[in-house]
Amino acid sequence: MSTVERLRTRSFSWQDPAATAAAAMELPGLQCMQAIVDGTLPPPPIARLLDFELVEVQDGRALFAMQPAEWMYNPIGSVHGGIAATILDSCMGCAVHTTLEAGVGYTTADLQVRYLRAMSDTTGRVLAEGRVIHRGRRTATAEGRLFVESDERLLAHGSTGCVILR
Amino acid sequence: MSTVERLRTRSFSWQDPAATAAAAMELPGLQCMQAIVDGTLPPPPIARLLDFELVEVQDGRALFAMQPAEWMYNPIGSVHGGIAATILDSCMGCAVHTTLEAGVGYTTADLQVRYLRAMSDTTGRVLAEGRVIHRGRRTATAEGRLFVESDERLLAHGSTGCVILR
Amino acid sequence: MSTVERLRTRSFSWQDPAATAAAAMELPGLQCMQAIVDGTLPPPPIARLLDFELVEVQDGRALFAMQPAEWMYNPIGSVHGGIAATILDSCMGCAVHTTLEAGVGYTTADLQVRYLRAMSDTTGRVLAEGRVIHRGRRTATAEGRLFVESDERLLAHGSTGCVILR
Amino acid sequence: MSTVERLRTRSFSWQDPAATAAAAMELPGLQCMQAIVDGTLPPPPIARLLDFELVEVQDGRALFAMQPAEWMYNPIGSVHGGIAATILDSCMGCAVHTTLEAGVGYTTADLQVRYLRAMSDTTGRVLAEGRVIHRGRRTATAEGRLFVESDERLLAHGSTGCVILR
Repeated sequence: MSTVERLRTRSFSWQDPAATAAAAMELPGLQCMQAIVDGTLPPPPIARLLDFELVEVQDGRALFAMQPAEWMYNPIGSVHGGIAATILDSCMGCAVHTTLEAGVGYTTADLQVRYLRAMSDTTGRVLAEGRVIHRGRRTATAEGRLFVESDERLLAHGSTGCVILR
Repeated sequence: MSTVERLRTRSFSWQDPAATAAAAMELPGLQCMQAIVDGTLPPPPIARLLDFELVEVQDGRALFAMQPAEWMYNPIGSVHGGIAATILDSCMGCAVHTTLEAGVGYTTADLQVRYLRAMSDTTGRVLAEGRVIHRGRRTATAEGRLFVESDERLLAHGSTGCVILR
Repeated sequence: MSTVERLRTRSFSWQDPAATAAAAMELPGLQCMQAIVDGTLPPPPIARLLDFELVEVQDGRALFAMQPAEWMYNPIGSVHGGIAATILDSCMGCAVHTTLEAGVGYTTADLQVRYLRAMSDTTGRVLAEGRVIHRGRRTATAEGRLFVESDERLLAHGSTGCVILR
Repeated sequence: MSTVERLRTRSFSWQDPAATAAAAMELPGLQCMQAIVDGTLPPPPIARLLDFELVEVQDGRALFAMQPAEWMYNPIGSVHGGIAATILDSCMGCAVHTTLEAGVGYTTADLQVRYLRAMSDTTGRVLAEGRVIHRGRRTATAEGRLFVESDERLLAHGSTGCVILR
């Protein structure tokens, strides 16, 4: 089999992220995140790059869904750990974002992920749920879980510390 | 301006990751990583997905390069933190991998990233350097730095704990 | 007021830790931890040093209690962060320990603590609860919460990764 | 041998921590830390509790020394991991403190420690060195190493994120 035969290709499209970023500062956080769930605001490029979607938000909570795939693989034959880190960072950051008033921003100060089981293209759809643990004036913390949708097997868990920008 | 006008598209291609994964178990780690640098083994899909490349390896050290781009953006107007996490995970994991004999594997137990400055599509090329701190029989740890190539401004730093699989 | 007048002194006593350490390898983990709760095995020196006690254990869970005091202070006028780290490490490590069969040991690979509110000598009694999140063959993870007993205000939370030693 | 025979006792004394805490806010950080090294300000209670000492400070760096002892032991026969966490937290926090102007405070947002080798009462004197990695307006990060003084064997390493309080 030639190298050429083994080549696989994927394309993805995204919209100018400036519109969503502007809305993220003008709207209360929960309303902004809900607009992405509803499709009235475009998802950010990262969601198109990794083909994940924000499926549910509430005050202090966000749920994402993703399909692990071969194009996410590392050199050792499984989905790269950065993919789990990215979706966990997303669900925890969005959970914090839902607690912010309009005009207040945040930035992630640190991210920590613990890997329990590798993902592969046969894992099936996975869910990442982020929940705020602490929301202070200057800082916030959140925890996240990544698990298989069908049987709730836990794949990874983590936490984050955010700085609130006023 | 219509939504259609704002759509941007990117395509990427990758090769069956099984060949590299098989080599990763058969070759000594440093030789396997060097083969990816040299192009005699195909880069893993994740490197094509994020368009990063392994530019240099030595015993206990790995250096990656990447160009931050709009298609990596989060909903708040900068490169998603998961991208820094992914390239830091890569450079630290590869640094650990370079220390493994043939037939010995590893898995990342945890990843921690501290974010100092956001990346954007005007940041310019960035480098991620991973270095092994401890290499024991059962476990290994490594540290990583992500910085701007042109002026060495530090963007993020982190560490990882790996389990050696014999 | 002279320096001499401001001197305060505390004494504590402990027993040879070898007995408890030997029991820790011979008994199933839960039984060993329960013997410390019951007082049939002496508490380890660290518990006398910091005057904390193991008040409750179950499979995968451990609860400690402690009284924050002036002799735990840092140079900036509150209880040193290492105290919270120590009791969180204890409750999470003991939670993992409760899941081990006789003859199986463990070691803490890493500890992470997020500080939400400082403790002082007016905080009142605090509780630290550790719970196992994942218990695999080679590794385990646990989470912990430190909170005020009277009103359940959260003071700190954290997580740990352990390596199982067979 | 009776239980009574196995009882060991240690006493320690400390001074009212209010004086050092007040100086910590009035002096530039480096000057305050140097006053503790010189003995013109009393060490904080935690340093007497664990019998460690601040031996050297510079701008962005702090070095502590400690003698591992039996009274620091955990239930599994070695020095409790919280001791390493405490001295690492100290050296990293003090390193950050040396960078602060008079009147500016800080608080530790999170602490992370990776354990490489256990300490025991035969380890001999250990040193903990903290170095600032990033010092921004709102936040700072630092790294720390704990090693045996005689042969520089690395025992643990870690990092911290701090919030600057203006």
